[in-house]
Amino acid sequence: MPQLLDETAKGVYIIAATPFADDGGLDLESAERMTDFYLECGVSGMTILGVMGEAPKLSAQESADFVSRVLARVKGRVPVIVGASSAGNRNLGAFVKKVMDMGAAGVMVAPIAGLKNEEQIEGYYDAVVREIGSTPIVLQDYPQLTNVHMSVSVINRMLAKHDSIKVLKHEDVPGLRKLSKVRAADSDGSRKRRISIMVGNSALHLPQEMRRGADGANTGFAYPEMLVEAVNLCLEGKFDAAEDLYDVYLPIVRHEQQPALGLAVRKEVLRRRGVIKSAHVRAPGYAMDAAEHKELDELMARLERKLAEIGRATKPFKG
Amino acid sequence: MPQLLDETAKGVYIIAATPFADDGGLDLESAERMTDFYLECGVSGMTILGVMGEAPKLSAQESADFVSRVLARVKGRVPVIVGASSAGNRNLGAFVKKVMDMGAAGVMVAPIAGLKNEEQIEGYYDAVVREIGSTPIVLQDYPQLTNVHMSVSVINRMLAKHDSIKVLKHEDVPGLRKLSKVRAADSDGSRKRRISIMVGNSALHLPQEMRRGADGANTGFAYPEMLVEAVNLCLEGKFDAAEDLYDVYLPIVRHEQQPALGLAVRKEVLRRRGVIKSAHVRAPGYAMDAAEHKELDELMARLERKLAEIGRATKPFKG
Amino acid sequence: MPQLLDETAKGVYIIAATPFADDGGLDLESAERMTDFYLECGVSGMTILGVMGEAPKLSAQESADFVSRVLARVKGRVPVIVGASSAGNRNLGAFVKKVMDMGAAGVMVAPIAGLKNEEQIEGYYDAVVREIGSTPIVLQDYPQLTNVHMSVSVINRMLAKHDSIKVLKHEDVPGLRKLSKVRAADSDGSRKRRISIMVGNSALHLPQEMRRGADGANTGFAYPEMLVEAVNLCLEGKFDAAEDLYDVYLPIVRHEQQPALGLAVRKEVLRRRGVIKSAHVRAPGYAMDAAEHKELDELMARLERKLAEIGRATKPFKG
Amino acid sequence: MPQLLDETAKGVYIIAATPFADDGGLDLESAERMTDFYLECGVSGMTILGVMGEAPKLSAQESADFVSRVLARVKGRVPVIVGASSAGNRNLGAFVKKVMDMGAAGVMVAPIAGLKNEEQIEGYYDAVVREIGSTPIVLQDYPQLTNVHMSVSVINRMLAKHDSIKVLKHEDVPGLRKLSKVRAADSDGSRKRRISIMVGNSALHLPQEMRRGADGANTGFAYPEMLVEAVNLCLEGKFDAAEDLYDVYLPIVRHEQQPALGLAVRKEVLRRRGVIKSAHVRAPGYAMDAAEHKELDELMARLERKLAEIGRATKPFKG
Repeated sequence: MPQLLDETAKGVYIIAATPFADDGGLDLESAERMTDFYLECGVSGMTILGVMGEAPKLSAQESADFVSRVLARVKGRVPVIVGASSAGNRNLGAFVKKVMDMGAAGVMVAPIAGLKNEEQIEGYYDAVVREIGSTPIVLQDYPQLTNVHMSVSVINRMLAKHDSIKVLKHEDVPGLRKLSKVRAADSDGSRKRRISIMVGNSALHLPQEMRRGADGANTGFAYPEMLVEAVNLCLEGKFDAAEDLYDVYLPIVRHEQQPALGLAVRKEVLRRRGVIKSAHVRAPGYAMDAAEHKELDELMARLERKLAEIGRATKPFKG
Repeated sequence: MPQLLDETAKGVYIIAATPFADDGGLDLESAERMTDFYLECGVSGMTILGVMGEAPKLSAQESADFVSRVLARVKGRVPVIVGASSAGNRNLGAFVKKVMDMGAAGVMVAPIAGLKNEEQIEGYYDAVVREIGSTPIVLQDYPQLTNVHMSVSVINRMLAKHDSIKVLKHEDVPGLRKLSKVRAADSDGSRKRRISIMVGNSALHLPQEMRRGADGANTGFAYPEMLVEAVNLCLEGKFDAAEDLYDVYLPIVRHEQQPALGLAVRKEVLRRRGVIKSAHVRAPGYAMDAAEHKELDELMARLERKLAEIGRATKPFKG
Repeated sequence: MPQLLDETAKGVYIIAATPFADDGGLDLESAERMTDFYLECGVSGMTILGVMGEAPKLSAQESADFVSRVLARVKGRVPVIVGASSAGNRNLGAFVKKVMDMGAAGVMVAPIAGLKNEEQIEGYYDAVVREIGSTPIVLQDYPQLTNVHMSVSVINRMLAKHDSIKVLKHEDVPGLRKLSKVRAADSDGSRKRRISIMVGNSALHLPQEMRRGADGANTGFAYPEMLVEAVNLCLEGKFDAAEDLYDVYLPIVRHEQQPALGLAVRKEVLRRRGVIKSAHVRAPGYAMDAAEHKELDELMARLERKLAEIGRATKPFKG
Repeated sequence: MPQLLDETAKGVYIIAATPFADDGGLDLESAERMTDFYLECGVSGMTILGVMGEAPKLSAQESADFVSRVLARVKGRVPVIVGASSAGNRNLGAFVKKVMDMGAAGVMVAPIAGLKNEEQIEGYYDAVVREIGSTPIVLQDYPQLTNVHMSVSVINRMLAKHDSIKVLKHEDVPGLRKLSKVRAADSDGSRKRRISIMVGNSALHLPQEMRRGADGANTGFAYPEMLVEAVNLCLEGKFDAAEDLYDVYLPIVRHEQQPALGLAVRKEVLRRRGVIKSAHVRAPGYAMDAAEHKELDELMARLERKLAEIGRATKPFKG
């Protein structure tokens, strides 16, 4: 019986890519290698079929196959969250039931496009919770992508109303003050439980967010070992050591955080590191050109040089 | 001493155009004729320098001159609201002080662009009220233009907090249910006063809005005499008669309601009716072409035919 | 062998609703009655699974069942266009192949969200055409919904490049001048063929659009018989007679054109007319309340009164 | 006679803040110190009243006073560009005339909000050029702020048509490929002149942009000495040395790049460095709280530690 996601979630919940072959077909073998890689990096959980997982470009069958294969590979060692955002609640409900039956630990739900004010946002999550009952939810607050904007108040109201929302995936920008305010409600008596806050937004502000009380990272940086080490250092209170390490990777974090191009870069780094066979992004999607490959060569070479200066190196994944 | 705007506002508060000469210069003579025209049509108030008044295209001096000339012409016969939306609160405050000193009855304030959630919206109006004290405010809820979205809750919170907000200019779409909900708070004990709700959005849903409890129209249709008659009939409870009249004009209401083109059409109708000398819209703005003039010819001719069928006619303004 | 859509398309291509039972299940029996109704109204074609068809809220199986049942009922009497917009081109391609194999006459493709400039728009349609070959396409230009903005130039460039784009579904606002400009390119030598332009946007500007050269309507107004009669009158050059008729229905056209509420109203009118069993809209979606039902009662009663004045009446559908 | 901006512009054109006193009044004394500071840092030019200069929050008189004082202080040593974006072309024209008469070297013009397609964008700049004649223009391409999206094609068409556009301020995201494409048109025969490309977007991708052929930076980072040194190294072809230096500051570049908060941080760093007296941002604007001050303390302390590791330090400005 797999463990369900709860409010104690912390560490790195890696946002997994969905590997395709060069011809665009789903590459389940790479999915298994990628799963091994993430586990070897020490992640505390995995989130599959998120935004960066190209979920809306999969067929229903492909989604099911991918979820099934990843879950089988993970074998319950870490919780697996499945992205379940959907244009219709009925489809969402059916999909959630399916993946929870398969052994997922919870689902991530971003607000659908077109929610324009806070009554609409609240009404939307009320309906989602009615649809999926007590299934644990990661609430994704990613306005740059969804164009749905939640204030701290509406987030706190929803957390108060729906016990099944266990984790806030925080990726608003600017977001540091917002994170602190949501965190504050855990201890000022206004909320009965302490929720988990995991940060996304490509980890661009990870050290500052951890200092402000985040519980970990829920993003897909292609060097997850750094995320794991930095987050663990922060959880031990060693913020400066964490930031020293993080800053070495910041040039690539910053590069990967670019919309559209970012996913292509992320997959290409995983490919170069021996994790997945092809960096193919399904259309419509970004395909790197020669200049972008060269740029990435330089950034990766610089990373190795900077790591060498502190007696470290990245290592390709052996599988 | 001019009367200040309060919650009893009702009838038609016409949104006035700002007349320019063909060369783009401010035409204060036409402004006076236009003022006479609106008063002759029986409006209960005027709103100048609103969105349709091309306010951001005027220089500070032109704004002052225009406000001053209109106020002098009105001579206190009806309240004059001045649009005061501004990118900076300090400028807003200085402008509000100036026009209130001149004799304006209140100001209309739309939320600035970029307010993304309800805490930000509330914070913005808190700051505006701090800046302008007890000056009566028309709160403009026009998300199609501002891209700022207010739920009923945030509107009601702001009405509860700020007594100086006297009128809601309602122009959200779809907006009928929203109007009813704001209205309901007047009588269900949750608000201590009944506020005024005037409808905008080019009066496209005026009859339905009046049936739901609006107090009048705050828009700039180029046949204000119809708005006045229809709103008065509604205020007497003669909704069907009002709608019969309104529907005759609906084809032009619908035509004028188009963004960008609408202002050009509105000014051209006013010009044709003898109200203003030129239909010039300042750049960047829409300039009607021959096909659009012909289209308007047809729509205006159809209006006269339909009016003739019920024994009526529009009359050019003699001034 | 069903006829494929081509540039001669004209008349009314009705945008069909997707009927659900009160419990949200797909109601294929109502789908058949609705098909009969549309055909009885004299439509020249049908578009199913468009925006108003709640396509993204159907499961893959439901979509296939619905398409199949409608096609079987139509029996080739009119062309059936299937909405095929999709977040991924591979899914889009597979779906298009399936529905064309079933007997669809063509597909409607709106630009995906997030296309921000004209190179991206052009690149998107290039990729779609590569994916679906010579399948006839209705290009949907509906920026209010998609937030993708096409100038006349980019539309004309795509029409020049892709012969398979047969119809422009025109629903930009303001759009009249745009329609004329696209039309002009048919005859000024810059395009080798005359394309079909069908208007959407709930037919809010239908008479003006037909006068400017549109070939018909591609929208879902719940009184299709009016659309058919008005469009036919226009195609015979009897524009004033068409507009006289249209204007009687304009209050309801205007009411139905409201976003979100509009679909609920449209389905409710179809239900009241005996066409579909339930007006259910799948969540997330608008559910009419008592005030909205009363409002619709009044508008429908007014329509009958106005029709009676010209010796007409709507008739419930007998099936 | 001041030199006008031309296509040879390179180096750092600093985006200047507008200093206010704690009570919100314009602080012209700080403006002079800030000017001295920028010049001492070695900037090649200054851009005042840009987005970060809070231009729309100044009164007309304040704008004129500020421009005048800065120009007087600069005494022609470097070109000064003035932000001239305006809602109306007539106001824009009058303002441009005024500042050019005062001795500005050119103006920066961002597209007004609401330009939705490329015909509209092109039409807008056509009108601006008609209004201001041959005044040298910096074309600002900052879609994250303006929500106006330009493809490479429309940028190149405008550069071909308007010789007075001398500089592209490039700040689209992702933007690296776009920069290369605009650059390519300088040498592939499609454009008769090589234009200047300066990068904005808070310099978040400066090293990559310089490697791709940018001529410099046009942003307001609060350690301009780093921008100057890094850009100069790049212009000498020493890209790796430049990036080594840049990366030390990247944590703060990344922190400052946050919308809204960024300006407050930038002003606070300038205040701490002794450049301006107050970090006041005019309302509506971001005011840093205690947590944000502490966060900045830590980031600035880390910067000094990292600089010390390479035998460097920042130095407060003595004025």
